[in-house]
Amino acid sequence: MNIYDVSSQAGVSIATVSRVLNGNPNVSEKTRSRVLAVMEELGYTPNVFARGLGLGTIRTVGIMCSDSSDPYLAHAIYYLERELRSNGYDAILCCTGSLLDIKRQYFDLLRSKKVDAIILAGSKFIEMRAKDNSYIIDASQEIPILLINGYLEGDNIYSTLCDDHMATYQATDQLIASGCRDILYLFTSVSYSGANKLEGYRDALTAHGLEIRSEYIHQCKKDILSARDLLLRLHHSGLIFDAVLASDDQLAVGAVKYAHAESRAIPDDLSIIGYNNSSYAICTDPELTSIDSKVEALCTTAVNTLMGVFNGSNVPSRTTIAADLIKRATTKF
Amino acid sequence: MNIYDVSSQAGVSIATVSRVLNGNPNVSEKTRSRVLAVMEELGYTPNVFARGLGLGTIRTVGIMCSDSSDPYLAHAIYYLERELRSNGYDAILCCTGSLLDIKRQYFDLLRSKKVDAIILAGSKFIEMRAKDNSYIIDASQEIPILLINGYLEGDNIYSTLCDDHMATYQATDQLIASGCRDILYLFTSVSYSGANKLEGYRDALTAHGLEIRSEYIHQCKKDILSARDLLLRLHHSGLIFDAVLASDDQLAVGAVKYAHAESRAIPDDLSIIGYNNSSYAICTDPELTSIDSKVEALCTTAVNTLMGVFNGSNVPSRTTIAADLIKRATTKF
Repeated sequence: MNIYDVSSQAGVSIATVSRVLNGNPNVSEKTRSRVLAVMEELGYTPNVFARGLGLGTIRTVGIMCSDSSDPYLAHAIYYLERELRSNGYDAILCCTGSLLDIKRQYFDLLRSKKVDAIILAGSKFIEMRAKDNSYIIDASQEIPILLINGYLEGDNIYSTLCDDHMATYQATDQLIASGCRDILYLFTSVSYSGANKLEGYRDALTAHGLEIRSEYIHQCKKDILSARDLLLRLHHSGLIFDAVLASDDQLAVGAVKYAHAESRAIPDDLSIIGYNNSSYAICTDPELTSIDSKVEALCTTAVNTLMGVFNGSNVPSRTTIAADLIKRATTKF
Repeated sequence: MNIYDVSSQAGVSIATVSRVLNGNPNVSEKTRSRVLAVMEELGYTPNVFARGLGLGTIRTVGIMCSDSSDPYLAHAIYYLERELRSNGYDAILCCTGSLLDIKRQYFDLLRSKKVDAIILAGSKFIEMRAKDNSYIIDASQEIPILLINGYLEGDNIYSTLCDDHMATYQATDQLIASGCRDILYLFTSVSYSGANKLEGYRDALTAHGLEIRSEYIHQCKKDILSARDLLLRLHHSGLIFDAVLASDDQLAVGAVKYAHAESRAIPDDLSIIGYNNSSYAICTDPELTSIDSKVEALCTTAVNTLMGVFNGSNVPSRTTIAADLIKRATTKF
């Protein structure tokens, strides 16, 4: 018995039921009476673990991330916790790793705790095969699911995304405008976000009439030394490249180390662009040009969306935020 | 009414009460009867929010950290959450910032949630003035308090520490053995851990008959560019130094950037040692020699200690773990 049963039985939206529960005045008396009657008829009662200020809620949101020690996700957790806290909600954190079975176990655990919502932080939670995401769709029948930089279509699923496609499109476009022609693309994951980044790179090449060559597109562990070693191998195999666009700053740091190892001048002989504009970007000499993927804005927006859902407001199921290209010393522009 | 009242009234230790609650067989029948009688007499009942497998517990531990986006603390949170989870406990995370009033507010919030214990991650939670720590001492009358790399004396307070004094002592000793005489010490905080690191540096100088000079000891924001700029200012003020020992890798990265800016050869003209052996240590060229402060071992040990407390085992109130000096390319040894 839950809010969804009430909604369906009363023939009103979940938002309307939520408004009634929250005492929101924007509900007609007639609708309010019908919803309350259905609640009584169905024996709908607030969650037995209710102990917060809200009705039928423990005022706790579950946050899942694949790895809280990853700098991007560490910042996401920081901002999500801060925003939830400022709205009077606790955050239960689960670090899941990347295996689907383990992610599902954590997800079920959070549901069994009767959390008010689950936030999936990072794009690693949406699988390529639709049936592998069905547990998320199923859960969204009962609680709102929020995705930070991931996308899944569903009625009670809300995505807050960085426009990764536009970001890599513009970065590639600027590399080409500054004279680069043989641009390597390094990426770590084929998530929704990862696929959009790659597509932006490809579309920019196509827009400039340049060929998309598979030998210029490489997947790599999210690890500085793995990226450096990959570039050393490509270099020694004879591949000619004058720029590296990376899906993460760690890979771009590896590219700087490769350039140092081979005495290639940055940016005159090799341009490099990272992603996330993390503190890695200022570790290197020269410092990295990097795409700021606006993690703080994403997290603030996602929590605002969630509060809107709780309050029964109309909220968009998908919000996209533009990235910024932060220009430093590894590019000619 | 809590476990402490039962312990005091029955004239047995908290550990014994805990053993009785957990059905641990290592309690005599006589003692068990007395404890159960006192519980009945005092009307001691498990926590009303009990919903986990344990008795009188919500199987949830509060973790406080000043900033989850700091790499050291981000890793600490990751390991703490993993270890708590594997023992069947949830983690509620609070990122507190560094202001005492805010830290106290979060602490009180966690206590009001009836968490089973509070872990204070990082050395920023223990204040210099004893009265500023009294809220922690008071809380330890009711729940165990765990400190990761902080120390506070108290009956139900458990500290897991890295031997920071020994770590900086040995690092300074090796710098001196490799020919350095004018060693700058950069640090970010005057916490318990921070004070021990500084003392290790001072003691090593003294052991070698070298003078401790205040112009060689500088506090700095935990920020790469702040450290670089501080060193540039000291350099231009005419200070002569042949080594930098830093309390955090970020500052050591700043030292590498200073050396590059002034074309000083690393390590021949300038040796550099960082602290924490984070991924920052491999961002730079040359890569940083850094002290591995064993954050994973600290967190695993702390959670084991906590489980021991819950099970009524005898656990040490203070555990110290030795650091490792990881030698890379910024030192001559």
